[in-house]
Amino acid sequence: MKKTIGPAETKYFQLPGSLLLDNNDSLHEGTIAYETYGQLNKAADNAILICHALSGDAHAAGFHAGASKPGWWEIMIGPGKAIDTNRYFVVCSNILGSCMGTSGPSSLNPATGLAYGLKFPVITIADMVKAQKQLIDFLAIPRLLAVIGGSIGGMQSLEWTIRYPEMVFSAILLATTQRHSALAIAFNEVARQAIMADPNWQAGDYYQGTKPDMGLAVARMIGHITYLSDEAMRHKFGRRLQDKEDFSFNFDADFQVESYLRYQGKKFVERFDANSFLYITKAADYFDLAPRPRADGSLKSPFSRARARYLVASFTSDWLYPTRESRAMVKAMKKNSLDVSFCEIEAKWGHDAFLLESERLSNLMSGFLDRMGRESQDYAL
Amino acid sequence: MKKTIGPAETKYFQLPGSLLLDNNDSLHEGTIAYETYGQLNKAADNAILICHALSGDAHAAGFHAGASKPGWWEIMIGPGKAIDTNRYFVVCSNILGSCMGTSGPSSLNPATGLAYGLKFPVITIADMVKAQKQLIDFLAIPRLLAVIGGSIGGMQSLEWTIRYPEMVFSAILLATTQRHSALAIAFNEVARQAIMADPNWQAGDYYQGTKPDMGLAVARMIGHITYLSDEAMRHKFGRRLQDKEDFSFNFDADFQVESYLRYQGKKFVERFDANSFLYITKAADYFDLAPRPRADGSLKSPFSRARARYLVASFTSDWLYPTRESRAMVKAMKKNSLDVSFCEIEAKWGHDAFLLESERLSNLMSGFLDRMGRESQDYAL
Repeated sequence: MKKTIGPAETKYFQLPGSLLLDNNDSLHEGTIAYETYGQLNKAADNAILICHALSGDAHAAGFHAGASKPGWWEIMIGPGKAIDTNRYFVVCSNILGSCMGTSGPSSLNPATGLAYGLKFPVITIADMVKAQKQLIDFLAIPRLLAVIGGSIGGMQSLEWTIRYPEMVFSAILLATTQRHSALAIAFNEVARQAIMADPNWQAGDYYQGTKPDMGLAVARMIGHITYLSDEAMRHKFGRRLQDKEDFSFNFDADFQVESYLRYQGKKFVERFDANSFLYITKAADYFDLAPRPRADGSLKSPFSRARARYLVASFTSDWLYPTRESRAMVKAMKKNSLDVSFCEIEAKWGHDAFLLESERLSNLMSGFLDRMGRESQDYAL
Repeated sequence: MKKTIGPAETKYFQLPGSLLLDNNDSLHEGTIAYETYGQLNKAADNAILICHALSGDAHAAGFHAGASKPGWWEIMIGPGKAIDTNRYFVVCSNILGSCMGTSGPSSLNPATGLAYGLKFPVITIADMVKAQKQLIDFLAIPRLLAVIGGSIGGMQSLEWTIRYPEMVFSAILLATTQRHSALAIAFNEVARQAIMADPNWQAGDYYQGTKPDMGLAVARMIGHITYLSDEAMRHKFGRRLQDKEDFSFNFDADFQVESYLRYQGKKFVERFDANSFLYITKAADYFDLAPRPRADGSLKSPFSRARARYLVASFTSDWLYPTRESRAMVKAMKKNSLDVSFCEIEAKWGHDAFLLESERLSNLMSGFLDRMGRESQDYAL
């Protein structure tokens, strides 16, 4: 039986100085919540950074004291698992803009002593990565063996390889895209509108009062439709009724899919901040490796800067970031003569497949990391 | 140049007696709003019924007095058009549960003298068809040459052929399904949740106060995503910004797709009732030709009752009612030895394609109707 890393603990890192953001604003006195598993070796060349998706946190594996549920990627991270904590030093940090310990709109604004609300600067995926870079520097990791992430975590991983090419030996990009599509933006925008339509939202200034739970629940339900996909819903729910023999002929939940969505919405508001949902989805919508001139003003393919080896995996039933988009990304990498492995994984469960148990994915990842461990020896730090 | 039928006028038909509904409730003193174009011939065998989709109305063609915009299917209905008003007597009625003249939750409840709100009975597609049947009887039409509809209008057309097989010579089913999928239910449910989350909704009892416009706007935006599809959005919007050179770094609409959705939401609340949205989407979710025993208790294929000739058309980019579902329907028809023509039309614009100008669709429909006009002569009334 595979083992767990056991007890895990979230630590907090104060960002030194101010963090200059893409909107030319600065974040002052920022905090990054993070966890680490395994040991950094003497050569400091066995570190892996895990980047989480929209609603994730720093707690990727193991169990917090007294908790019955492990971290969000327990199936993948641990002794003998694909991301083997006996071999690798694994770091996972909560993203900027979130509400799980890292600075975000629900954090205290040092300028006012009150929660930021919409005074928190609008951030980008690159800003999240800049904050992570400070943490990696603090942990005295000169180069990451791999950066790994799915969905919005994949965007961060991708950004790492472009922004800090010398610091990333490889990257594993799961169910992600190099450019947020109109469809993905549309879903996010409607979800944001649902939050902003909630009168309790109060232009983001609700921390002293009632939270916009109704709006956030609807936003989450919209998200869940995109995570599941048509095929997943057919398999999971079909037209089955929820605890009844016939239609209710009222506006209760008749179908299992309705109950499921309502439950997901309700559960989510207990643990997530509505403003964080706004900020993180906006960062995802802004994400596009190509069009804005990068720091050096270059309009060349962003991959001309990259040096990493890539493993890219998409999932057949993922309609949010479909295989087509992964292929476009892989094509751009290959045009830049990069070392890239691509795999489309047969999966019923839509976008969320990257979070689910999959022998195929585990084997792909452990094999790739194995190779990276060997090959990185030829590129001494 | 193709001509219009010119002035059009909505008329109102009082349902005689009570209408027994699928939920075993009855609708008392119901009204049906309808329009007619062209002339019923002496044989009374040239009548075509048009069934509209979610937010449509009885005004399918021509111009109301003083109006600058024609009816919603002007491109298809008129002299010399696919549904040729020189040849056919065309009827279009507003569906039960709507808010465009036919009885619905915003109508006055004769029992109280106030708007029904949620006291309006929860209806089904079959109930809409039962009401239409009363109108067709009133118009002294013994048999419809064709029933035509797209989306929810297609469901009504399909239901007509099963419920009143002797009264329907043929049916044209566009962008529709014989069974609402889990995905389609999921979208509708989240849209309903958005409405019901609006505090102005007041459990449906808002007609004396402020309308739940915010919730209804979000619901409409969700709908618009499903009408457009991934491909349509890529063609129509891509990642183009709305009237700006760079990101706003706030929660305004940055992208054209965001502006489009916001505009659609805002425009919709001016003309549509939130409760009607709840009722009609629920009717669509309930729609399934197969599983509930029909009136005669039969569990055989519902198509075993059908006698109509069918033209079924799906659209390549329609992800709400994808071609797969049309094919399943066509297969079931063929198993029952029915006369069915099927066509998948190449279209970029997603589900809404059936409402857009398409020479292919026009030709298909006029050809089919032509054939039906000839063949129906062999089946005297």
